[in-house]
Order: sequence, then C-alpha cells, then structure tokens
Amino acid sequence: MIQPWPLLQSRQIGDFRIFQLRQDDKVSPRTGETHGFYVLDSSDWVNVIALTPRRELIMVEQFRHGTNSVELEIPGGIVDDDDASPVATAVRELREETGYEGSGARVLADFSPNPAILSNTCHLICVEQCEKRHELKLDSGEDMITHLVPVGEVPSLVAAGRIRHAVVLAGLHFLDLWVRGITS
Amino acid sequence: MIQPWPLLQSRQIGDFRIFQLRQDDKVSPRTGETHGFYVLDSSDWVNVIALTPRRELIMVEQFRHGTNSVELEIPGGIVDDDDASPVATAVRELREETGYEGSGARVLADFSPNPAILSNTCHLICVEQCEKRHELKLDSGEDMITHLVPVGEVPSLVAAGRIRHAVVLAGLHFLDLWVRGITS
Repeated sequence: MIQPWPLLQSRQIGDFRIFQLRQDDKVSPRTGETHGFYVLDSSDWVNVIALTPRRELIMVEQFRHGTNSVELEIPGGIVDDDDASPVATAVRELREETGYEGSGARVLADFSPNPAILSNTCHLICVEQCEKRHELKLDSGEDMITHLVPVGEVPSLVAAGRIRHAVVLAGLHFLDLWVRGITS
Repeated sequence: MIQPWPLLQSRQIGDFRIFQLRQDDKVSPRTGETHGFYVLDSSDWVNVIALTPRRELIMVEQFRHGTNSVELEIPGGIVDDDDASPVATAVRELREETGYEGSGARVLADFSPNPAILSNTCHLICVEQCEKRHELKLDSGEDMITHLVPVGEVPSLVAAGRIRHAVVLAGLHFLDLWVRGITS
C-alpha cells in the first residue's frame, strides 16, 4: 500500500496572483530520504458543461497565454473567494463569458487539475436549458467567441485534436460518459 | 476572430527544477491595455496507454505531493532532454515504473496540460502487447504500485471518480474514443 510522505517543513516562495508557490520538504516512507517538492496553491477552478434545449454544448474560443494559441474550450474560471460556491461561480462565469443562463446547475464531477504540482480542485458543473439572455461581460484580459456544438459531434472534435486543454478534455470525458449513461 | 496578443516584454522569475516561471507583459488586441501573465515553462510530458495481450490497461498508484493524496494514474513522466523522443521517453517510463515492455509504441494524441499557465505539451503514447520483463526502477522520490484494469472497466472507474488527475482523464478520453473507433 502506498504510504503518505511526512512533511518536515514548508516554505512560501512567492505570490504570483493566480497561484502561490511553496516548497515542501518531505520524507520518503520507502527510502527515508528527504525530498523537496514545489507546489502551486490556487483557488479552486470551475468548468461548465452548458447545454441548450437543442442539446448543443456551449463552447468558447479564447487566446491562451501559456501556449500563445487560440483554444476551443468550455467556459470556466476561478472560484473567487471562500463564500462563493462552485455552482454559483459556474453560473456567473457562463453568463459573463457567453451571455447564456440555464437551470438546474449542479456538480457533475470533481477532479484535480494536476495533483503532482497543483493543490486545488476543478469542479465540473452541468447547466441545462441554456438560453442567451445577456451581453458578454469580459474582463479586460479576456476575448471570447461563443460556439454551439451539437453534443453528438463533440467526441469526433476531440478525436480530431481540435480541443487541446487537458482540464477541458477531462470535463468532456465526464460529459461523454454521462451522455452514454455510464455511471460507477 | 480571436487575435493573438503582442508581447511587450518577458521576464524570468525563477527556476524551480520541474518548471521555470516567467512573466510576460502583453497588449490586449481588443482593449489596447497591457496585462501581465505568469507562465510556467516545463519540458514536455508523456503519458502512456499501455495494454497487455488480455486488453488490460496498466495503471499505477502513487502519492502526489500537490494534493497530498494517493492517485490512480497511468505511467508517465518528463521528456528529459531535447534528444529523447516522446516515444522513447514513454517506453523508458513504462519500464521503470512498472517493469512492462511492449511493442509498436506510437503517439495516440498530443494535448496541452494547461494552455493558460503551462507552455508545454503532453504526448499520449500507446504501447500494446505489454509483458512484465523487468524489475521496477524507481527514483528515490517515487513509490509505485501497478494495477491491471480491463479496458472495458475503465469508463466506470472514471465515472465513479476513482481517477482524479485531469491529464490522465484526458488521456483516458482518447483511449475510450480509440476503443470505440471514433476518429475525426
């Protein structure tokens, strides 16, 4: 059985707005050796599976600064403070990024964006019966274009390599399983 | 159409072994305002879809230091230097982490671990006809336990929330599409 690693000490390195960086020194339960691990702390993230009454998935195209590329994704964002629930954050991000609103928002899945280097959780929120009711409200750091994609066409878009963001691909895997009625 | 953001200047902040952190100042093509973006540069990563002749997926259980939790994943690692190909890295990581070797290793998909904050690519490598031929060769910072999971049971493991690493979930989405014969 895999054992947890006892923590010797933790040291904050810096605050970089969207994440804080720390170093944790831990002891291997297998070898007894001490290792330093860099960890990024960030608020939790949400991604939104938003569907129209015609079973279209609401997708957004935006420029991403890590890869310097335009990416086709689903709406999402950061849970701003401890008071905001992931569901409320998802509803707000969907409205601001696409102008759409729906009903019955609920958690479809929770997962880790990267448990090796990030401590946070991504909450995948599902919203159905979405209609466009608002104008977009973009941050000055955002550009977005909305695309409606029939749910049945999403798997072949993924297979074609049109969607490249791993966190979005993880969310679309849960969508695909849900559409096919696959549960645990 | 979404426009790229011109780069004003880039500043290296620090080298944290598994990634280097920089700040890029860029100009919004929509508003003309300047924004700073933090970007993590890392070598490319590989994840391995390794199958036995009985169509079992080779999975590994390991402790992850971002989330302080034991995670069920597929083998993977970092492409060490510019000379090593992703396929060679995948074959080596599979051997070191599980002792298995197979044939016909090839790229199944490429995607971005997180295009918002990471500049690198994850290469998903598929290896078939895998047999256990070696002892494990773990880094002193690794503990691993190998599990063989029938490919047909993987989707329900995902639906049950047993696999939480987004990069692994993205890889398993490509596996699921491949098994079902879904191409672009």
